[in-house]
Amino acid sequence: MKWCFVASLLTVLTSSQGILTTLSQTNGKYKYDYATIPFLAEVFKLMVSGVFLWRERKKSPPPKMTTDWRTVRLFPIPSVIYLIHNNVQFSTLMYVDTSTYQIMGNLKIVTTGILFRLFLKKKLSNLKWMAIVLLAVGTTTSQVKGCGEASCDSLFSAPIQGYMLGILSACLSALAGVYTEFLMKKNNDSLYWQNIQLYTFGSIFNMARLVMDDFRGGFEKGPWWQRLFNGYSITTWLVVLNLGSTGLLVSWLMKYADNIIKVYSTSMAMLLTMVLSVFLFSFKPTLQLFLGIIICIMSLHMYFAPPNMLVDMPSTIKSDPESLVNVPVDPKTDS
Amino acid sequence: MKWCFVASLLTVLTSSQGILTTLSQTNGKYKYDYATIPFLAEVFKLMVSGVFLWRERKKSPPPKMTTDWRTVRLFPIPSVIYLIHNNVQFSTLMYVDTSTYQIMGNLKIVTTGILFRLFLKKKLSNLKWMAIVLLAVGTTTSQVKGCGEASCDSLFSAPIQGYMLGILSACLSALAGVYTEFLMKKNNDSLYWQNIQLYTFGSIFNMARLVMDDFRGGFEKGPWWQRLFNGYSITTWLVVLNLGSTGLLVSWLMKYADNIIKVYSTSMAMLLTMVLSVFLFSFKPTLQLFLGIIICIMSLHMYFAPPNMLVDMPSTIKSDPESLVNVPVDPKTDS
Repeated sequence: MKWCFVASLLTVLTSSQGILTTLSQTNGKYKYDYATIPFLAEVFKLMVSGVFLWRERKKSPPPKMTTDWRTVRLFPIPSVIYLIHNNVQFSTLMYVDTSTYQIMGNLKIVTTGILFRLFLKKKLSNLKWMAIVLLAVGTTTSQVKGCGEASCDSLFSAPIQGYMLGILSACLSALAGVYTEFLMKKNNDSLYWQNIQLYTFGSIFNMARLVMDDFRGGFEKGPWWQRLFNGYSITTWLVVLNLGSTGLLVSWLMKYADNIIKVYSTSMAMLLTMVLSVFLFSFKPTLQLFLGIIICIMSLHMYFAPPNMLVDMPSTIKSDPESLVNVPVDPKTDS
Repeated sequence: MKWCFVASLLTVLTSSQGILTTLSQTNGKYKYDYATIPFLAEVFKLMVSGVFLWRERKKSPPPKMTTDWRTVRLFPIPSVIYLIHNNVQFSTLMYVDTSTYQIMGNLKIVTTGILFRLFLKKKLSNLKWMAIVLLAVGTTTSQVKGCGEASCDSLFSAPIQGYMLGILSACLSALAGVYTEFLMKKNNDSLYWQNIQLYTFGSIFNMARLVMDDFRGGFEKGPWWQRLFNGYSITTWLVVLNLGSTGLLVSWLMKYADNIIKVYSTSMAMLLTMVLSVFLFSFKPTLQLFLGIIICIMSLHMYFAPPNMLVDMPSTIKSDPESLVNVPVDPKTDS
């Protein structure tokens, strides 16, 4: 159960990400350019993967590395999807407020399940589908605005475009995940070699964003490489290292586990962040957070517990051997 | 699937009960004495059961009727439990506000599951337990106070006695249900004969309450039988008939189905009432109502759908016949 350890680590690191990011602010503001964080994280991941690949190449048998253009050209695609996703995200926020946006973000749990089924042809049982929907419902429940909180009746009152863009955003986010899984599992190339391709394009796209920002700002603050580390503190570096590490863990999960496990990790991380915020930032715990946690734990158990543990199937079958004969067996459900 | 029809009817009638009760008010107040409603409902149920038993006795074979004192003496017990429950309810409300009380009321779903398991020795699968907890979580979610609503931070701030009494109240409510099921299934007496015993004691206990109220009020408004129908409108009569009918349906379910089915019916009724209130009394639909409905429908499906439909078990077994041999079969789980 190595994936179980990796997924738990991802939960802890993703959760720390939110807390570190909050701690990296000075008086509620970023003293550094936030766009530099994902760029440096990509560079960090690229370097780590480089070191690991170099060590792997000294061993025998050497790692499998496909350098055929027809394979390499597939690796920029996740970056392209994320680029489109960022723009859709930006447009969505012109129509809806941030709390509605956050609530709609939970849709990506369900869209990931759907695309996982459609594109990766993984069959999910009725119970697993319910678990996925419950996970989305649980995370949404934990985010329900409590009484006394500001911006009340905005949830069902945004223009329809806002909701359409929210759905599109959820689909793009899921698509990026499912596509990456497809890419990582496509052949048995070394994980580090695949990472290097992924992160090279990731670094380029993130660098392009910094250049774009410079052009938009008319180079008023100077080119990006001159102010790359401006305002960086130790916490800022921890944010970079943390983001890079979560990225590496996600890559590992995409190759050796799957998207659904990743979605569970990050959803649990969201709840963990809220619980930690109660202690660290003295947030008031709400009933809906408590309910959301119960729902998500149930969902986790439903998805990952062995089916015979859930439904006492073996004993039922034993007490009534006829049931095996009576059950219609559909060969299509057999995968 | 006769129980399915009865349970659905119970949902509709229980839901109408809340709406009829609201409609029976004049300017937000009851013009009649609300304590007369359960008394008249008991009398109505007694009369209906009497008619049915009389018709049954004309048929052959005649209905089975145990008149042994050792059996008859068990029938006042549910009324005694309800009497204690009412007093605990009253005490609870001295410590907690009504919305906290309402939220805690959902605990009875879980306590019913526990007492059902302990006293009636019915084994529930892991999945069914999860479904029961989810039903309670779902109904609670739908009741979470939205933003802008009054009385905010009272939920976790009541004195500990309030919560203890709330738990006691949930246990008593569950005990009454589970005990009634035990009583109805104890022997194969006619349902109508069992009803007559149950409702005779029910009528006596409710009449005793009216007498007690008279004594407390110092007979200022005159004895209860003189003002029994004071302020009654057609809607008030509908409330009585509706309450009586739901009682008869519950009796039927206790004998031919079980407490869990009853709990599902009444929980679904609560959600139905909230949905109908959106249309009838122009309540604002909240996100939490929507989430609660999804959770409860999932729970319903988890509890009642055939296990092989949920987990694709037959095909798994078919593809790997060894699994049947490998699974350890615990004879205790075999019921």
